[in-house]
Amino acid sequence: MANTDPIDDIPQTRDRRKELLERDLMEKACALFASKGYGGTSLADIAQAVGLTRAAVYYYFKNKEAVLEAIVNEVTNAPLREIETWRSTAPDKPADRLRTFVEMRVRGVLSRQVQMRMIEVTEAALPEDLLARHTEAKRRILEEYRQIIRAGIHAGEFKPSDERITAFGIIGMVNWSVYWVNPDGRMDTGEIASQLAEMAVRSVSVDKSRVDMFTDPKTAIATLREDLEYLSNLIK
Amino acid sequence: MANTDPIDDIPQTRDRRKELLERDLMEKACALFASKGYGGTSLADIAQAVGLTRAAVYYYFKNKEAVLEAIVNEVTNAPLREIETWRSTAPDKPADRLRTFVEMRVRGVLSRQVQMRMIEVTEAALPEDLLARHTEAKRRILEEYRQIIRAGIHAGEFKPSDERITAFGIIGMVNWSVYWVNPDGRMDTGEIASQLAEMAVRSVSVDKSRVDMFTDPKTAIATLREDLEYLSNLIK
Repeated sequence: MANTDPIDDIPQTRDRRKELLERDLMEKACALFASKGYGGTSLADIAQAVGLTRAAVYYYFKNKEAVLEAIVNEVTNAPLREIETWRSTAPDKPADRLRTFVEMRVRGVLSRQVQMRMIEVTEAALPEDLLARHTEAKRRILEEYRQIIRAGIHAGEFKPSDERITAFGIIGMVNWSVYWVNPDGRMDTGEIASQLAEMAVRSVSVDKSRVDMFTDPKTAIATLREDLEYLSNLIK
Repeated sequence: MANTDPIDDIPQTRDRRKELLERDLMEKACALFASKGYGGTSLADIAQAVGLTRAAVYYYFKNKEAVLEAIVNEVTNAPLREIETWRSTAPDKPADRLRTFVEMRVRGVLSRQVQMRMIEVTEAALPEDLLARHTEAKRRILEEYRQIIRAGIHAGEFKPSDERITAFGIIGMVNWSVYWVNPDGRMDTGEIASQLAEMAVRSVSVDKSRVDMFTDPKTAIATLREDLEYLSNLIK
């Protein structure tokens, strides 16, 4: 780092650089918290990982707690913002609603993979107010799932079930991706998101009855012809 | 504890008592590792939690590492034993195979809930050989899922898909239960297991085609009659 003094450049560049450095700092800190534990990591370790002096790090975060707080805030606020965005264009049909929601969630958790793993590991060490905010965000995500499932059951599209078990089954499918997807791997996030979304929709959908295939008289007659053909073969 | 000297009773009772105490010790240690972290827990903390002196704990485990090893061994070996038992009576039809496998797995992870959560949190602190054994057990469970899914796709019962994403989707559904099921709650483990198993099977199954409903000529004719009835109503 040629220049660690953040004062001597023009304001706009300074802001941009501050943002980039903060982000790098948070990512490196995350990885350290996840591997060495929150208690086992010092601000000096974080400074070393980003290649700054401790004094330079103090310019961004007053202590280790402040770094943790910034990370938790991001993992907590980002999904709620994403849900708001999704809601503004979400389709009405429950199956499509669930599909787009799961896709959005998988993309979301995979974009914050290191942070998610870290929080799971550090949850016991989180200060009370951060834990409360984190728990509240999780509750709101769960509530969104439950609403979609409830609407689907009500519309006769989804199989009646214990809505809470169903919601957590799908949440598990989504969140577990944080553990098995290799962040450095070349797997396509979009493919993972769409396959898991497809599985989620199938896992709750009612079987299509024969009657659903009769959309109009013409299709119905064509289907009946096929059936008669099949039946005559069956009798032979 | 009236009597902490393990020497002065008859061998059989002694063995039984040793086993019970070891189990209690492992459970309390697990809870401590999970809440305070492995590094943050001492053998003295464990002794205090079970109401023994440190000297008495030494009789069972020579140090903190030995306690951790006993716990990891259980979480690693128990599922492999359960899979062996399941295999001896597992049905052949892929959907039934998947259903019984998922049910067995959900019951399994929920019976080791505290241990599973603890291992997730301590994974970074696990000694190399324990971590290797743990990883190998997870690999074998994944392999079993993949085999079932592959057989189902091959038999035309399951929808063709990326077998690995599908396996991890179901594993996530199963393993996540460790995080949301309240261990002290009154939810029926059997109900959770059977609902998640049902979701898993649906998530991979192909849609039933009309032709599958034609099991024999008699059923086929009855179905066609219903269809004609429906069709005439549709035209009206």
